Amino acid sequence: MKVWLNGALVPAGEARIDPADRGFTLGDGLFETIRVADGRPCHLDRHLARLAGGAAELGIPLPMEAPEIAAGIASVLAETGLSEAAVRLTLTRGPAPRGLLPPDTPRPTLLATAAPASPSPAPARAVIARSTCRNELSPLSRLKSLNYLDGILARREAADRGADDALILNTRGRLAEATVGNVFAVIDGVLVTPPVGEGALPGIARGLVIERLSAAERPVTVEELMNATAIAVTNSLGVRPLATLEGRPLESRTAASELARMIGFA
Amino acid sequence: MKVWLNGALVPAGEARIDPADRGFTLGDGLFETIRVADGRPCHLDRHLARLAGGAAELGIPLPMEAPEIAAGIASVLAETGLSEAAVRLTLTRGPAPRGLLPPDTPRPTLLATAAPASPSPAPARAVIARSTCRNELSPLSRLKSLNYLDGILARREAADRGADDALILNTRGRLAEATVGNVFAVIDGVLVTPPVGEGALPGIARGLVIERLSAAERPVTVEELMNATAIAVTNSLGVRPLATLEGRPLESRTAASELARMIGFA
Repeated sequence: MKVWLNGALVPAGEARIDPADRGFTLGDGLFETIRVADGRPCHLDRHLARLAGGAAELGIPLPMEAPEIAAGIASVLAETGLSEAAVRLTLTRGPAPRGLLPPDTPRPTLLATAAPASPSPAPARAVIARSTCRNELSPLSRLKSLNYLDGILARREAADRGADDALILNTRGRLAEATVGNVFAVIDGVLVTPPVGEGALPGIARGLVIERLSAAERPVTVEELMNATAIAVTNSLGVRPLATLEGRPLESRTAASELARMIGFA
Repeated sequence: MKVWLNGALVPAGEARIDPADRGFTLGDGLFETIRVADGRPCHLDRHLARLAGGAAELGIPLPMEAPEIAAGIASVLAETGLSEAAVRLTLTRGPAPRGLLPPDTPRPTLLATAAPASPSPAPARAVIARSTCRNELSPLSRLKSLNYLDGILARREAADRGADDALILNTRGRLAEATVGNVFAVIDGVLVTPPVGEGALPGIARGLVIERLSAAERPVTVEELMNATAIAVTNSLGVRPLATLEGRPLESRTAASELARMIGFA
């Protein structure tokens, strides 16, 4: 297995991240997770545009143009021979001396790795996270950054409570997102999802659902969640319906398959 | 220059972090910054206790006991020959496959690096960050985790506004901390600092100031900050007074030198 690191294919066991890389020392970077179907990355233009937008917001220069990045991803896929896969593209500000202020001339790190696609998971038993919340007041809530510890806390909490996933609330106690995806709920017969201002990452799959299904963007309370008829979590790898929320059964078949079909995942 | 990585001294140019290390991919780890004076790490017991506490909270097993870690730090210092230095100790959950849920049997990464001590910086021109805020509702606000992007955003904002540092408010708009340290302010003649519940990291230097100067822990509003007579930022490397806050001059000499003396940094 090889990875694509700073423009070159390297055996995974030899690929070296510098211990001074700010991605490692400070979480100073971004990533994208890209579905590969029939050997082709899905919605790659949207992923690369989001990465470029986040990099501009953080002031991390992209070390190469989109076509070169696409070629790098293609080269990793060709090496691995995977036709159904998940590609992860990671951009960091690269190695630097101590201190928070970015170096004047950063040498960013850009890494692409591929893993075999996982089988579609069963509908999830979900809880509402109590251990942490998402800070919708920080611009980071709109970026797919390397700062994922709140999600890890919520995911560990879900496991501790015998569940598969957790929905995460924002600082005002309203729905933000799930640990690794956006949340769509059928409330009073209407498909709704929280706006980005509520702490929802502007997910690629989320955008497709909103465009193609005219889902409504509006704040969602816990009470509404507990009265929803169906809930699904979307990310770039697919759609996962919830079987239960806090133990309460949900309609998990139709809603999810419909969502998946509409955004081209099924 | 050598670093100490997973129990061995390695030339810095050869030390390799696995691209699958969760510290790199997800910010899944913690660190400590330790002052070294006269060749000896200061308050090492407190740093190692805090690291162990944070690791327990995140469920990251410490790969060795405190005496072995202390010996590793000593070996890095001996190699570098530095007597005045800053040691950084980084602990991550180590390499793992995709997904947020930690692996059942993690292989944590433990790294110690040393850098020469920086000269004491001049009193800081500070602003109050507008670009982001600290989420005091997340347990991460009490951990020195690798998720440092909010601090980086605030530090970049300070530079953009012609300042040296930024004070960061919590989600309720009250003082949490500075980008790389805790904040003490003299308000109505009393030395005060925000409680941990306001989003202040439980800093080692902060603890020493509270113990030795009987500083009061209580919420601090922006209005109070703007009326403070002196403000200083503390971290394990020292005490830095503010020369100005949002352009307003502060008394920067006595307060800081007094703080520094009391906690043994001067």
